[in-house]
Amino acid sequence: MKVIIFGRLHFGTVIVVCSSKIDVCPIGMIHRQNPDEDVNDRNLISKIMIDKQYSNGLLGIEDWSHLYVIYWMDRILDEKKTLLCPGSDSGMPTVGIFATRAPVRPNPIGLTLVELVRREENVLVVKGLDALDGTPVLDIKPYPYWLKGRWIVITKYKTPAYLGKINK
Amino acid sequence: MKVIIFGRLHFGTVIVVCSSKIDVCPIGMIHRQNPDEDVNDRNLISKIMIDKQYSNGLLGIEDWSHLYVIYWMDRILDEKKTLLCPGSDSGMPTVGIFATRAPVRPNPIGLTLVELVRREENVLVVKGLDALDGTPVLDIKPYPYWLKGRWIVITKYKTPAYLGKINK
Repeated sequence: MKVIIFGRLHFGTVIVVCSSKIDVCPIGMIHRQNPDEDVNDRNLISKIMIDKQYSNGLLGIEDWSHLYVIYWMDRILDEKKTLLCPGSDSGMPTVGIFATRAPVRPNPIGLTLVELVRREENVLVVKGLDALDGTPVLDIKPYPYWLKGRWIVITKYKTPAYLGKINK
Repeated sequence: MKVIIFGRLHFGTVIVVCSSKIDVCPIGMIHRQNPDEDVNDRNLISKIMIDKQYSNGLLGIEDWSHLYVIYWMDRILDEKKTLLCPGSDSGMPTVGIFATRAPVRPNPIGLTLVELVRREENVLVVKGLDALDGTPVLDIKPYPYWLKGRWIVITKYKTPAYLGKINK
């Protein structure tokens, strides 16, 4: 793994130059009961098959009820899209890709918070994972944050008003 | 970008073979006011410098108060550690790396939920980012989830009892 990034300051504007890529190796993959099911149905159960070389890394994971799953959306085309229009209704504003969870993004990294149903050796059975069958998994982390003796869950937050017009 | 993963079923045990790596390109980097400050102090302000080619992707991000920052912990040694003992006290159990947020993991991907203070063109000023100065950023996503007309914030969760003994 080799990463070289140069940060240069020019007249108050920072130019970040990405001169090298980062190599990430999948730690496992997602297996759905039915490859054609609606991945947005948060009640569906799916499995995360962890590579045998990392199965020790799951020790004690049953003590957590919820996990973040970080995965690579490998069915996404390698587009350099930075803007999109959320939803299918007219009148929606154009927003930047980092202001959305849309899968077409510079790095198609997916992040979903799932419920851990149970562990079966190197397999995690989870509920609510909205990733396609066969998707490579990059990392798994427990939820929520633990810092200096307390749990951090954000319950006061601001969101865009236009989202209230979608899915109603 | 090329990913090939084979899933094979042998006598009920799934073997996942990672035969190819995934190339990820940083979209920016983290800049701290003081490179030596305590990154675990969630009150500190830091900056995320987004590469100019992706600055359009920040359009409308100010409508969100909180963001997930996904980054690459490039100062972490390339260890193949899968087990660790959380905290410095004796009597802590040995747990798997995926049951912790420890930085030494198969892919040193960091995930932090931060407060967006403001945007200055291609720079996001954020509060609570526990990443080192110069860390490459891979993705930024809004918080929380929006699905089928409702926000998803998990407030009922289970966590390991042993964590109650740390940082007290």
